[in-house]
Amino acid sequence: MRRVLGIDPGLRITGYGLVEATDRAIHPRLVEAGVIRLDAKRSIEHRLAQLHDELRDLIVELSPTRLAVEKLYAHYKHPRTAIVMGHARGVILLCAQQHDLPVTHLPATEVKKAMTGNGHASKRQMQLAVQGQYRLAEPPTPPDVADAIAIATTAARRIAIDAI
Amino acid sequence: MRRVLGIDPGLRITGYGLVEATDRAIHPRLVEAGVIRLDAKRSIEHRLAQLHDELRDLIVELSPTRLAVEKLYAHYKHPRTAIVMGHARGVILLCAQQHDLPVTHLPATEVKKAMTGNGHASKRQMQLAVQGQYRLAEPPTPPDVADAIAIATTAARRIAIDAI
Repeated sequence: MRRVLGIDPGLRITGYGLVEATDRAIHPRLVEAGVIRLDAKRSIEHRLAQLHDELRDLIVELSPTRLAVEKLYAHYKHPRTAIVMGHARGVILLCAQQHDLPVTHLPATEVKKAMTGNGHASKRQMQLAVQGQYRLAEPPTPPDVADAIAIATTAARRIAIDAI
Repeated sequence: MRRVLGIDPGLRITGYGLVEATDRAIHPRLVEAGVIRLDAKRSIEHRLAQLHDELRDLIVELSPTRLAVEKLYAHYKHPRTAIVMGHARGVILLCAQQHDLPVTHLPATEVKKAMTGNGHASKRQMQLAVQGQYRLAEPPTPPDVADAIAIATTAARRIAIDAI
């Protein structure tokens, strides 16, 4: 059984989503999803420690077998946002290594294309795609949760396809 | 007594330098400096865990009272390098928080100007300035060590000046 924890990192909101599938199943099951909210009034070092501790607790509670994140890419419209996001991503990858979890790094366009058919889908389209695929009553909110579920789903599928 | 640990983060080489000064002394003493070298052949998550563990050991061994790093800035020539550096910086700030160390964030130009009089000094000029100030037999190498010592020195001085 694969249990993939997808993470969409940020220093205000970090989305997470755990999906589960048998080794060759293409359609995983959604187990749990949510957000880690950090206190934007606190220093960056305090927020990083909070992120580290909450993610560690999540990993212990949810027992994933793999972590999945989007790949780095360099052409950000907002370099400062990307650098700040790098801080959160660094702490998340550290947590993965501290728990001996292998990490899948997926290009953002691959995740969007796998979920919607469009590598440049909007946040709203991603929310609707996740809602449809898992037959949820509402689109997951905030969008960070939908993105995290999409990352986990795409990583779980890629492993299933590689296994065929 | 203030003991300031300056850090110049990277995912290949992280420089560090510890300086010490009594509360109002403008000229600190250089206690120790060196580099943490990460294995560039390993995954980013492995390198981040290595950085975390080696920095934790250094903090325990050197007992700093404060950590100092350069501030984030957005106008990088190489956004990818800056984002990768953000990962290392995130792990370093996490370590500071885990050891209850206050952090000084200094603009890079302030450090260069304080050491050389020129806010855009070259790496070589920084190495020579650190060598001269601490009367070292050789310029500290690699440049990451000189930068870390310069960051610690500038942070220690700023505190001394604020105390006057």
